[in-house]
Amino acid sequence: MSRKYAIIGVGHVGAAIAFSLVVQGFADELILIDKNEKKARAEQLDLQDATARLDSRPKIKIQDYAELADTDILFVTAGNIHALDNASGNRWAEFEYTREIVKDIAPKIKASGFNGVLIDTMNPCDAITQYLQKEIGLPGSQVLGTGTFLDTARMQRVVSEKFNVDPKNVSGFVYGEHGESQFVAWSTVSVNGLPIKTLAPKMNLDLDALEDTARSGGWAVHSGKGYTSFAIATCAIKLSRAVLDDAQLMCPCSSYNVKYNSYVGQPGIIGKNGVEELIDIPLPPEEEQKLATSAATIKEKFATM
Amino acid sequence: MSRKYAIIGVGHVGAAIAFSLVVQGFADELILIDKNEKKARAEQLDLQDATARLDSRPKIKIQDYAELADTDILFVTAGNIHALDNASGNRWAEFEYTREIVKDIAPKIKASGFNGVLIDTMNPCDAITQYLQKEIGLPGSQVLGTGTFLDTARMQRVVSEKFNVDPKNVSGFVYGEHGESQFVAWSTVSVNGLPIKTLAPKMNLDLDALEDTARSGGWAVHSGKGYTSFAIATCAIKLSRAVLDDAQLMCPCSSYNVKYNSYVGQPGIIGKNGVEELIDIPLPPEEEQKLATSAATIKEKFATM
Amino acid sequence: MSRKYAIIGVGHVGAAIAFSLVVQGFADELILIDKNEKKARAEQLDLQDATARLDSRPKIKIQDYAELADTDILFVTAGNIHALDNASGNRWAEFEYTREIVKDIAPKIKASGFNGVLIDTMNPCDAITQYLQKEIGLPGSQVLGTGTFLDTARMQRVVSEKFNVDPKNVSGFVYGEHGESQFVAWSTVSVNGLPIKTLAPKMNLDLDALEDTARSGGWAVHSGKGYTSFAIATCAIKLSRAVLDDAQLMCPCSSYNVKYNSYVGQPGIIGKNGVEELIDIPLPPEEEQKLATSAATIKEKFATM
Amino acid sequence: MSRKYAIIGVGHVGAAIAFSLVVQGFADELILIDKNEKKARAEQLDLQDATARLDSRPKIKIQDYAELADTDILFVTAGNIHALDNASGNRWAEFEYTREIVKDIAPKIKASGFNGVLIDTMNPCDAITQYLQKEIGLPGSQVLGTGTFLDTARMQRVVSEKFNVDPKNVSGFVYGEHGESQFVAWSTVSVNGLPIKTLAPKMNLDLDALEDTARSGGWAVHSGKGYTSFAIATCAIKLSRAVLDDAQLMCPCSSYNVKYNSYVGQPGIIGKNGVEELIDIPLPPEEEQKLATSAATIKEKFATM
Repeated sequence: MSRKYAIIGVGHVGAAIAFSLVVQGFADELILIDKNEKKARAEQLDLQDATARLDSRPKIKIQDYAELADTDILFVTAGNIHALDNASGNRWAEFEYTREIVKDIAPKIKASGFNGVLIDTMNPCDAITQYLQKEIGLPGSQVLGTGTFLDTARMQRVVSEKFNVDPKNVSGFVYGEHGESQFVAWSTVSVNGLPIKTLAPKMNLDLDALEDTARSGGWAVHSGKGYTSFAIATCAIKLSRAVLDDAQLMCPCSSYNVKYNSYVGQPGIIGKNGVEELIDIPLPPEEEQKLATSAATIKEKFATM
Repeated sequence: MSRKYAIIGVGHVGAAIAFSLVVQGFADELILIDKNEKKARAEQLDLQDATARLDSRPKIKIQDYAELADTDILFVTAGNIHALDNASGNRWAEFEYTREIVKDIAPKIKASGFNGVLIDTMNPCDAITQYLQKEIGLPGSQVLGTGTFLDTARMQRVVSEKFNVDPKNVSGFVYGEHGESQFVAWSTVSVNGLPIKTLAPKMNLDLDALEDTARSGGWAVHSGKGYTSFAIATCAIKLSRAVLDDAQLMCPCSSYNVKYNSYVGQPGIIGKNGVEELIDIPLPPEEEQKLATSAATIKEKFATM
Repeated sequence: MSRKYAIIGVGHVGAAIAFSLVVQGFADELILIDKNEKKARAEQLDLQDATARLDSRPKIKIQDYAELADTDILFVTAGNIHALDNASGNRWAEFEYTREIVKDIAPKIKASGFNGVLIDTMNPCDAITQYLQKEIGLPGSQVLGTGTFLDTARMQRVVSEKFNVDPKNVSGFVYGEHGESQFVAWSTVSVNGLPIKTLAPKMNLDLDALEDTARSGGWAVHSGKGYTSFAIATCAIKLSRAVLDDAQLMCPCSSYNVKYNSYVGQPGIIGKNGVEELIDIPLPPEEEQKLATSAATIKEKFATM
Repeated sequence: MSRKYAIIGVGHVGAAIAFSLVVQGFADELILIDKNEKKARAEQLDLQDATARLDSRPKIKIQDYAELADTDILFVTAGNIHALDNASGNRWAEFEYTREIVKDIAPKIKASGFNGVLIDTMNPCDAITQYLQKEIGLPGSQVLGTGTFLDTARMQRVVSEKFNVDPKNVSGFVYGEHGESQFVAWSTVSVNGLPIKTLAPKMNLDLDALEDTARSGGWAVHSGKGYTSFAIATCAIKLSRAVLDDAQLMCPCSSYNVKYNSYVGQPGIIGKNGVEELIDIPLPPEEEQKLATSAATIKEKFATM
C-alpha cells in the first residue's frame, strides 16, 4: 500500500528526516505537521521543489492529523532546542517544553486513529516517550524512543577513531537514559570481533574517558551548530525501515521494561509492531546496577509529569 | 580513485548537500570548510555519528584547503541569508557579503591547485560565479552556478500542480538571472509532451501568474523557514553527478555565454569538464530580448565588482 | 503498510526485477512464484543470502498465490525465451506459450483477490496483456504492459549515441506494438530540447536507419546473451515506483485504447490506479496511420486468442 | 576522479555485479571484458538501454584491457559453472578451467598497468586468487577473493532463520576455504549479542546441522537455478565499496596469511589498499586446527597449479 510517513515537528530534526526520506526515495507519502504552519508549508515547498530532480515523487502533505489514520511511521520530533542553551548539558531542560507539546498532540494523535509505530526523538527522550505512550494509549511496543540508539552510534564512532576502523566494526551498546545517567556497557563492546576489555589495557585505552566523549558527543555537535540533526535523523530512519521491513533487527532504543516499570534504553528487536522483544544480555553486576540507577532516574522524572 | 567532494560554507545549503551526499553514499571523501571552524567540526561530527547507521563510510575532513588539490567537485555555498531578511526579495542583497567571501576564498582555492569542477550556489548567483571564476582563473567551463536550474525545478513544480502531474512531465527552461530578471521561456515548456502555449488557453491558465509563482518560489520557502536548502542542495548534487559520470546531461545552469560576455542561466551540457557546451534553443524574439536584458542586468552588476 | 511486490515467473527478467528491488531496498515484501518451484526457492535463497550484506531486509516468500490478496504490484514475467531462438525476430513466436501461461495463472490471480496493479512483460506484450486483463477481470487501468516503454528507452539510447549525450536528453516516444509494427513517432522526438526533425538534415542523420536500430535493439541483446533482462527489468520497476508514489508520471506503455478497442503502446499517466489516463499527442497523419496499423495488428492477433 | 570499475567475465556473476552497480549508481565508469565478445556487447547494450530510466549515466565500455590502467576495482568473475554439474558439490571441479583463464588474463592485467584492488570470485576461490596474485605480481593486499564472505552471509541467514531475526543480528565468521573444508567458527558467533554456544543448548540447536546447511547453501541455490549470482555479487560489491571509501571495514575474505603461507578465508580489514590487515581472533584449539587443515588443503591444491 506504499510507505506512509508522518512527522510532527519539522524543526532541524524533523526536516532532516523529511529530506533524507525524500532524497532516498524511502517514503511514498509524507505528512508534515508543525505548530508553525508557515514552517511546515515552507518545508513542503522546498521538498516539492526538489522533486523534479529526483527519481521518485513522494506525495507531501501538511498539517492534517486525519492523515495519521493510515500512517505507518510517525516521527515525533518536536522540541525547543533553545531550552538547552543555558542548560549545562542536561536534556531535562527540555522537559517543561516537551510535556506541553505532548499534552497538545497526544489527543490529536489518539483521535486520528493512528495505529502505526511512533518513533520519538523528543527530550528527555525516555520519560517523554513513556508519557506520550500513556497519553495516546497505544501498546508500548508501538511507541518507542530513539534513546541510546544515537548514543550507541556515538560510542561506535568514538571507539572506532581510537582503532582507526569503520564504526561498524564496533559492536555493543549504550544502555539507560538518553541523558546523563546513560552508560556504555563495555562488557558488550567488541572491536573487530575482540572484546574491548581485553584490548584496552594493551592499548592503554581509558574507557572512562571514551565513555565521557561518547556521552558528551551531542553537546560537542550542539555547541558548534546549535542543535544536532543528521545522526539523530539517520537513527530514526533506520528504526523506521526495520519496522516497514518487519526486519526483526536488533537495535538499542527506548522502550518499556517491565522490570523497572519504566522506559529505558536497551537492545530490542524491531519489527512491524515496533519493539517486538527486549534482549536481555547478561551484564556484570556493576553494569546491572548502572542500568537500574538510570531507569530509576527516568522513572522518577516521569513521575513528576 | 573514488569520488572526492568539498564544500566551502556549511550553512544551511552546504550542510544539506553534505547530509544528502553522505546518506546516499555518493561521496567517498568529503571536505568541509567554513569560516566558523566550530560549525565545520560540528557538522563533521554529526555526519560521522551517522556513519554507524549507514551502509558506507565516507571520509569526512575539515578546514584543509590543501585537500582541494585532488577534489573532483567543489561546492561553494557560503552566504549570509540574513542579508535577505529586509531585502524585499532581492538576491543582490547578498552581493556585498559574498564578494568579500570570494576575495577571501578564491586565492586559497587557486593556491590549492584545485582543478575539478566548481559548483556555486552563492547569490547573486550569476555575477558572483563569474567573479569567482575570474579570481580563481580556472577555465569557464569548470566554474558554474546552479543558476536557473533551481528556478526551472520550481517552474516544473508550479506547472505540474496545475496539471496534477509529476514535475518530471514538465519540460522546458527558466533562462537568465537567478534573480528578478529571470523568465520562463514558455516557448520551450511542454506538459505531458504537449506545448503549454497550446494547453494554456484551453485551461484558462495565466502563464504570467504561473511565472510569478515560480519566480517567487524561493521567497515562499524563505519566508517560512528563513532560508532555502533542500531543493538547491538537490540541484547542486544532480549537477555534480552529471560531472562525475561525464553524463553529457542537459541542465540549465549559470555559465559563461560569449554572446553576452557574461554568465547567465541557459541550458548547457554537463560532463566531466563542467559545462561542456551551451545549447542554443531558438527562442521567439520576445524571449530572446528577455534573455539579453537579463544578461545585461547581470553584466552590469558584475562590472561593479 | 509497506511495499508488497510479487513476481510470477522468475526467469531472467523476473529474477533481475527481484534482484534490483532487493539491492535497492524498494520492496518490503516480495513474493516469487514460478512453475518450477525449485527455481523459485533457489532465487529466494540467493536473495536471502544477500540480506546480511544489505541495509534492509525484505521479506521474501515463494509460491503462494494467496499472498497476492494484498500485493501492491504484480509483475508477470513468465515466458519461454527459447521460443524465440529460431523465430527470426518475432515476438509472436512466444504467443502459443504465453497464452497457455495466462490460462494457468489468470484464474489463480483472480481467485487470490488481487487488486493492485499488474505490470506485464510477457510477449507478445500488447495482446497477451489484454488477454490477461480480460481473463482476470480487473479494470483495464490496473493491467498494463511494459510495451514500448522499453523500445522508447532503446530509441533514446540509439539517438543519444549519435549526439554523444545522455539518453535523458532525448525526449519522445515509440508507439504501437512492442514488436515489429512499432514505430518511432519522430514528430515527438527532441534532442537537447530541439526537434530531431530539424536536427537530422544538418547532421545527415538517417532516421529510418536509427529506427531500425532501435527496433532491433532487443535482438541485438538477445543474440549476444540469449535473452534480455536488465533494461526490461529497470523499465518495469520504474513503472511500479510511479504507481506506489501515485506519481502521475508520463510513460509510454501498453494499455487499452478505446479508439482502437485494443491494447497498444502510447504515453499514459501512471499513478496509483495504474494507467490513469492516456495522453493523446497530436501526431502527423502518417504517424497516426502507423499507430492505427500497429493497433490493428495487435487486435487481429488478440482475436485469435 | 569518479569510480572506475571493471569486470572480467560477464557470466551470471559478472552480469549481476554490473547490473547492481548500474542500478544503484555506484559506478561512474564500467569496463566489461569477456572471452565471448558478443556476450560483453549484449550486456553493455542491455545496461545502456536501462540508462534512460535511471538517475545516473555510467560510462560502459567493453573488451579493452588498456582501460584497467586507471581502474579502481577489478572483479574477476570468470568461470564455467557447467563444470560443476556433475561435480557432487566440489568447487575444485572448476580448477582446470579457471587455471587456464588465469593463464590467459593475468598477463593482460599485468601489461595494462592495473594498480587497483582485484576482487576475485572464481573457484576454487582461495587457490585461484593466490595464483592470480602470483601471476599478476601485485602486492597480496591488492588481490583478494570473496572467499568465506559469502559463506559467512549464508551462515548468518541459516542461523537467523532459527532465531527468526535479521541476519544482521548474527555476528561471527566462517573461516577457511570457500569450499568443503570451510568451517563456522562457532566461538565467534553471537545472535542478538549473545554467544550461540550458550543459546544452542537451551534451544536444542544442532550446530553441526546448521553448519552443514550453511556450507551446502551454494549447492541449494545451484541445484535450483543452475548457478549462484545475487548473493555473491552483493558480497563482491560490498567489498569494493569498503575499498573506495577506504572504510577499514572488517570482512572475512580470502587473502594471504603468512602463518600458513597460503590464501585462506578469515576476517580482514578492508580499505583502499585492499586487505589492509588480518584480524586474528583467538580461536579455541579445535577451531585453530580446522583452520590449519583448511589452509593446508588450499595450499596443497595451489601447489599443483
